[in-house]
Amino acid sequence: MCQGVKIATIGGGSSYTPEFVEGLIKRYDEFPVRELWLVDIEDGKDKLAIVGNLAKRMVEKAKIPMEIHLTLNRQEALKDADFVTTQMRVGLLDARIKDERIPLQYGIIGQETNGAGGLFKGLRTIPVLLEIAKEMGELCPRAWLINFTNPAGMVTEALLRYSGHEKIIGVCNLPVNVKMTLANLLQVETERLHITFAGLNHLVYGLDVFVDGESVLEEVIDILSDPDKQLSMQNIAPIPWEPAFLQALGVVPCPYHRYYYKTKEILEEELESFKSGTTRAEVVKKLEAELFELYQDPDLAIKPPQLEKRGGAYYSDAACNLMSSIYNSKGDIQTLNVRNNGAITGIPLESAVEVNCIVTKEGPQPLAVGELPVSIAGLVQQIKSFERVAAEAAVTGSYDKTLMALCMNPLVPSDRIAKKVLDEMLEAHKEYLPQFNRESI
Amino acid sequence: MCQGVKIATIGGGSSYTPEFVEGLIKRYDEFPVRELWLVDIEDGKDKLAIVGNLAKRMVEKAKIPMEIHLTLNRQEALKDADFVTTQMRVGLLDARIKDERIPLQYGIIGQETNGAGGLFKGLRTIPVLLEIAKEMGELCPRAWLINFTNPAGMVTEALLRYSGHEKIIGVCNLPVNVKMTLANLLQVETERLHITFAGLNHLVYGLDVFVDGESVLEEVIDILSDPDKQLSMQNIAPIPWEPAFLQALGVVPCPYHRYYYKTKEILEEELESFKSGTTRAEVVKKLEAELFELYQDPDLAIKPPQLEKRGGAYYSDAACNLMSSIYNSKGDIQTLNVRNNGAITGIPLESAVEVNCIVTKEGPQPLAVGELPVSIAGLVQQIKSFERVAAEAAVTGSYDKTLMALCMNPLVPSDRIAKKVLDEMLEAHKEYLPQFNRESI
Amino acid sequence: MCQGVKIATIGGGSSYTPEFVEGLIKRYDEFPVRELWLVDIEDGKDKLAIVGNLAKRMVEKAKIPMEIHLTLNRQEALKDADFVTTQMRVGLLDARIKDERIPLQYGIIGQETNGAGGLFKGLRTIPVLLEIAKEMGELCPRAWLINFTNPAGMVTEALLRYSGHEKIIGVCNLPVNVKMTLANLLQVETERLHITFAGLNHLVYGLDVFVDGESVLEEVIDILSDPDKQLSMQNIAPIPWEPAFLQALGVVPCPYHRYYYKTKEILEEELESFKSGTTRAEVVKKLEAELFELYQDPDLAIKPPQLEKRGGAYYSDAACNLMSSIYNSKGDIQTLNVRNNGAITGIPLESAVEVNCIVTKEGPQPLAVGELPVSIAGLVQQIKSFERVAAEAAVTGSYDKTLMALCMNPLVPSDRIAKKVLDEMLEAHKEYLPQFNRESI
Amino acid sequence: MCQGVKIATIGGGSSYTPEFVEGLIKRYDEFPVRELWLVDIEDGKDKLAIVGNLAKRMVEKAKIPMEIHLTLNRQEALKDADFVTTQMRVGLLDARIKDERIPLQYGIIGQETNGAGGLFKGLRTIPVLLEIAKEMGELCPRAWLINFTNPAGMVTEALLRYSGHEKIIGVCNLPVNVKMTLANLLQVETERLHITFAGLNHLVYGLDVFVDGESVLEEVIDILSDPDKQLSMQNIAPIPWEPAFLQALGVVPCPYHRYYYKTKEILEEELESFKSGTTRAEVVKKLEAELFELYQDPDLAIKPPQLEKRGGAYYSDAACNLMSSIYNSKGDIQTLNVRNNGAITGIPLESAVEVNCIVTKEGPQPLAVGELPVSIAGLVQQIKSFERVAAEAAVTGSYDKTLMALCMNPLVPSDRIAKKVLDEMLEAHKEYLPQFNRESI
Repeated sequence: MCQGVKIATIGGGSSYTPEFVEGLIKRYDEFPVRELWLVDIEDGKDKLAIVGNLAKRMVEKAKIPMEIHLTLNRQEALKDADFVTTQMRVGLLDARIKDERIPLQYGIIGQETNGAGGLFKGLRTIPVLLEIAKEMGELCPRAWLINFTNPAGMVTEALLRYSGHEKIIGVCNLPVNVKMTLANLLQVETERLHITFAGLNHLVYGLDVFVDGESVLEEVIDILSDPDKQLSMQNIAPIPWEPAFLQALGVVPCPYHRYYYKTKEILEEELESFKSGTTRAEVVKKLEAELFELYQDPDLAIKPPQLEKRGGAYYSDAACNLMSSIYNSKGDIQTLNVRNNGAITGIPLESAVEVNCIVTKEGPQPLAVGELPVSIAGLVQQIKSFERVAAEAAVTGSYDKTLMALCMNPLVPSDRIAKKVLDEMLEAHKEYLPQFNRESI
Repeated sequence: MCQGVKIATIGGGSSYTPEFVEGLIKRYDEFPVRELWLVDIEDGKDKLAIVGNLAKRMVEKAKIPMEIHLTLNRQEALKDADFVTTQMRVGLLDARIKDERIPLQYGIIGQETNGAGGLFKGLRTIPVLLEIAKEMGELCPRAWLINFTNPAGMVTEALLRYSGHEKIIGVCNLPVNVKMTLANLLQVETERLHITFAGLNHLVYGLDVFVDGESVLEEVIDILSDPDKQLSMQNIAPIPWEPAFLQALGVVPCPYHRYYYKTKEILEEELESFKSGTTRAEVVKKLEAELFELYQDPDLAIKPPQLEKRGGAYYSDAACNLMSSIYNSKGDIQTLNVRNNGAITGIPLESAVEVNCIVTKEGPQPLAVGELPVSIAGLVQQIKSFERVAAEAAVTGSYDKTLMALCMNPLVPSDRIAKKVLDEMLEAHKEYLPQFNRESI
Repeated sequence: MCQGVKIATIGGGSSYTPEFVEGLIKRYDEFPVRELWLVDIEDGKDKLAIVGNLAKRMVEKAKIPMEIHLTLNRQEALKDADFVTTQMRVGLLDARIKDERIPLQYGIIGQETNGAGGLFKGLRTIPVLLEIAKEMGELCPRAWLINFTNPAGMVTEALLRYSGHEKIIGVCNLPVNVKMTLANLLQVETERLHITFAGLNHLVYGLDVFVDGESVLEEVIDILSDPDKQLSMQNIAPIPWEPAFLQALGVVPCPYHRYYYKTKEILEEELESFKSGTTRAEVVKKLEAELFELYQDPDLAIKPPQLEKRGGAYYSDAACNLMSSIYNSKGDIQTLNVRNNGAITGIPLESAVEVNCIVTKEGPQPLAVGELPVSIAGLVQQIKSFERVAAEAAVTGSYDKTLMALCMNPLVPSDRIAKKVLDEMLEAHKEYLPQFNRESI
Repeated sequence: MCQGVKIATIGGGSSYTPEFVEGLIKRYDEFPVRELWLVDIEDGKDKLAIVGNLAKRMVEKAKIPMEIHLTLNRQEALKDADFVTTQMRVGLLDARIKDERIPLQYGIIGQETNGAGGLFKGLRTIPVLLEIAKEMGELCPRAWLINFTNPAGMVTEALLRYSGHEKIIGVCNLPVNVKMTLANLLQVETERLHITFAGLNHLVYGLDVFVDGESVLEEVIDILSDPDKQLSMQNIAPIPWEPAFLQALGVVPCPYHRYYYKTKEILEEELESFKSGTTRAEVVKKLEAELFELYQDPDLAIKPPQLEKRGGAYYSDAACNLMSSIYNSKGDIQTLNVRNNGAITGIPLESAVEVNCIVTKEGPQPLAVGELPVSIAGLVQQIKSFERVAAEAAVTGSYDKTLMALCMNPLVPSDRIAKKVLDEMLEAHKEYLPQFNRESI
């Protein structure tokens, strides 16, 4: 990284890219990016041009010597990169709409990172990421692969187990969001707050919360028992937790835990959206169209504020912080998806977990958590098993593994429905699941 | 055990007792029971007398010198016993009706050994069994405690962790039933069949199936894919498995697995029974009344054939085989609930598992299974975590632990419903849950 | 195995073979061996002829229709075998003399199964056994490989990890010897005695001892504290244990434990033998010459009683019992070297352990032991680590791995001496260590 | 810690104290210690006065408002302390002389932290530290206990398992020494160097070495193969490693590893010192006398340079850095003895390990290491088992446990010698081992 950093961003035409570019501009002094390569595929050429031009205007306005390259040639972008970030959506938002609507059609939860929808997003995404990791082995073997693509847990699991590449990190904006929300609720600066995060992506718990080194866990749980103050996110219905449940749980849940502890309420809510044609994917599709409208404005040279509604706030922040901490060997604590390595007892050493890590030039190293409380260990183990079978299904294209993954998932309450959903989704996403159609080649 | 065996049977007035007595009579030559003490509580006095007298007539007819003692004095029965069997139902069938109906009232599964119903049966039963184990420590410290009371997994977990007594075995008739059904389907004698059972009580899998030492697992899965040939039990709706699911699972499920892989169908079925007032408990209550009618017939001196409809077929057989194998140090393999001790990787050493054991004078020793297939490990770990929290709730009388156990259970899809069901059930069973009412004493 | 059993015995010209044949003759009614193929290499042709002819005379005298085949063609012998037993000595007794004398020359223990000597025996033996296992994969894939060749722990470790063959069992006569000696000391029939064996080959402990199901461990330890009654074996100097040590240990050690708990005394004793030219290998070489003299007597048609002095008493018995138990699915308990599979906590699932197993048609299944007492766990883990590195050294021919294995061994007190011994032994055994000389080929 | 920090230093009369005071003075700006209480016992009163007065002169010269209190009243010192450091030597140097000479008299290694000597130092020290931890529970429950007393591994093990106090950290200067030596050999600033330390106290390995985030492990091993450049310490004979051994080991050993990989050479060296009356303890006793001579000089107001020869260089630095990092929540990485918590696979969660930790206001949290290389795991597990049995012996005063601990130790090659050494040392240290003499009180 002698003469400035080279970053390759796969899925560069994403609507998130302006936030990412803003993050790089903000940190330019400490983290001097020389080249940012935005890569996309043929189908995304137009979006890449729009976003790329906005990026160029932003850099120009900021007066920093960061080169923005737009390309459909991934190999060119990967060549000698220091960091590769991946944020693509295989099948675009239309595929997400299917991920959400087909399960709901059969009366089960449809969502981008959980249940049947999450599984199919994984099946489409994992083979592409494995291919990228393989190319990195040849073109930039010492680069870090930093993935934001959902379902990040399943994807990181697959990359750790099936790519030969060792430098793999999964990033999610959720822990940062939780931390900022709690800091706000407690009215302390983020720096004074420490949360012992542990679990899996979108299934991470705050095992303890400290202000200035003293635990304030009980206070936090009391605060969260007030429905108006609970943690939520743009893309999850803000159904309040039962206060007695929070007390019984004894740790801080994340917003996605609602899928598992409030399955019934979430399902009802989603069925409403299904009927009104306003599932999250449909809402997002509309938002994105509006964003790209904005991005085309030749006078726009900053990240437009409307982007924050999109749902991924802090994603790019999380990624930029990570890269800068590696580059500068900062040694700060970040919550990342990495190889467990014993940090959480009862989860395989080789599996991905989401856990606090110290980040230095050597990369992230997870802090040892030990045993999870019994009351949460079982769910974490079950979802990890699901992710392992799902990752294997994605790699092998096995119908049996895929059906099994679905039947293991707590959001799928019937083997019969599982099969119906599976068959319809395999057909609907056929084009993006070549591994399932080997005989037809 | 020099001069014949002494058995104390707690819950001796149970309708199952005639089968148990028949089992002892059949095995008298190899397993000479000198004294059988049937113990019950004041409320069960009448049933004890009816069943006890039938037992006496059976022994007399069989012309064997086995003494039948009827008593309400538990200590007297335990004194110097060689085996203590426990088969009681705290709160009788009326409590079971509540265990089934209250959850259904809130739209969730109500069942004797799973979900909210199973939890409450455990909460009522565990303190009584711990008391018995404590008395055994004084009155018959070298005796084996052989428990058939459901939920046997949770109960054995609690006895292993919280009673000081080491000689604890949980018995269930399910593995024997599965084995006999498969032997029948394969048309081989039971002796030629070996099934590698592993898991938890009512959540046990047949990991492999052998005839004469050769695996026939694939053949078995093919056979079971025929809905007419699937494994079922009297007390579980015989809803057929999806054939593709069985192929994907790749091991033999037990009938109770329907609760987890066919939650939706089971719930619908139970809601039907709920509406028609024919939940399993209600059916059983009627059956039991009829049985006790029969038992009173002074000319009856055998186990009446109607008992088999009751649902617990082979329970007593399983228990008698176990005691005889210990007594005779037979060294045969039986599937029992014992301390894991490493037999199943990923489950605590101290926890109860249901697994093949060799049974000798030293008691049962589990055969090491190693890692469960990933596709089933997660569910087993989750239910084990539920059982651990449930056992702790039963011992401590903690509202939080109880609510947490409910919310952890895969059959309870909402923290809000969990709380409602919990509050109503705590009230409904108040009389049998003294540990939850400490302050009121 | 329909029409009688076929056994292939690799190293058939061994002096032990007559005992093995006697064992087969004795068990012919329950275990009808149709064909016994004695296989040896060119260098062992003469011994094979002598032993083979004796075997033929024994069978003839016993009047049983067991065919004895003598061959130098291993493939012919393996073809469709049901059991393959391996009992060869790569490099013959001359190599063993070097295994013993070279280390002693540098002041460290030289022995056939421990320390530097054991390591080199393993390095010579493992590649040959892996080759046999590979041939079995083609010629008799369903046959059991039953290995008696020392060092059986290291060899079984290598076969489990590096051969593709799954049906691997290591057999040692030590547990049977310990059991018979204790039965004798306690004056009870062997059938009434049960010992909970656990550990590694030649490092196995009796964790508990039962007579008729009651522990007599304390009594046994008291008896063993009398130096005249301690367990020993022909090939280990009978140096008495310190009584206080036995009390502190609290479990029953095996004779080979002297190497680790009496290293100093054993070394002194061996240095004596070294000086007088009477190391165990030298004594055995003389004994063997005498035995082969006897075997040539055309009137001899039984196993000559002199064979018992040879040291391997009950080896063949152990192997014959094992094969018969598999063949007849006896379900008895035998102490064998098998894949741990979780039976002993703290040892990898994939590693070989020596532990009680139930033996049926499905093969041996280890009984779960759980945690070893802290006081013995560390040594077992250390020796297991040594065996793992040693097995890897044998497979890879890596100088570094071999030196590391030596330096890990508790009997090698110096890296400098380790290197000297290593270099001299690599040279001395060069001919039998082709994997270490790849470049020179 | 609002108004400045209070530290209680048990064993305040130690010759190391001036270095400690110097460390506090140097860091006063970032770590403002208001009160330093030096505590000692009646027998150490004179040394406390000498050292205490020097400390006062040092503080005065440095012109900082740190109060130095000298006391024999431990409770007074502990009251409301923020940090308690323990650096005492139960039995003083005369006891250490016995720890070293008695084993050597029987031909086995005598050393302060390993083998029989280390065991006895632990037996004398552990009960005193447990008493201090208990008092802390009452007088300063939120204070950190920071122990430098050797054998720090065994002592930390005992404190973690048997004291109720949770805030326990063991500190050793060895990792800092190794790091500084390697930085020097590699000619890089310490800040650019990162070493992945893992193992136990005095048995810690550098699993990898990084400069600016890139591994330089191979280079380091090559450099260390030069005998003139190997790591050593004042109190360990600088016997060079065999270069081939370092290559085979493949990780960086610590100086104390010589006890295990060069037992023979160390023993020979120690026997020399034994004969000449210059064992380390004897040398140190002389050094200490000279130091106290110096300390009495009323003109001395700095740490005299002669102290560095004493052997504990950087000890106080390590401790001061630790306290300051906690106080300032620095989040830097330090190598400490803490509860394993899963950081090293294969060592119990509850046991003490020496491992890299991130240090913040919440205390040290170990970084997850995962599996140790097989080539070192066994020794680490064996020594950990030894420490566990030793800690139990110290707490219970059990003769059996103590003998067992000795026989488990790799430096004790015979149960017979173990018993002789044990009996003589129990007698020699009788006065400081009240737990072994319960009946006689």
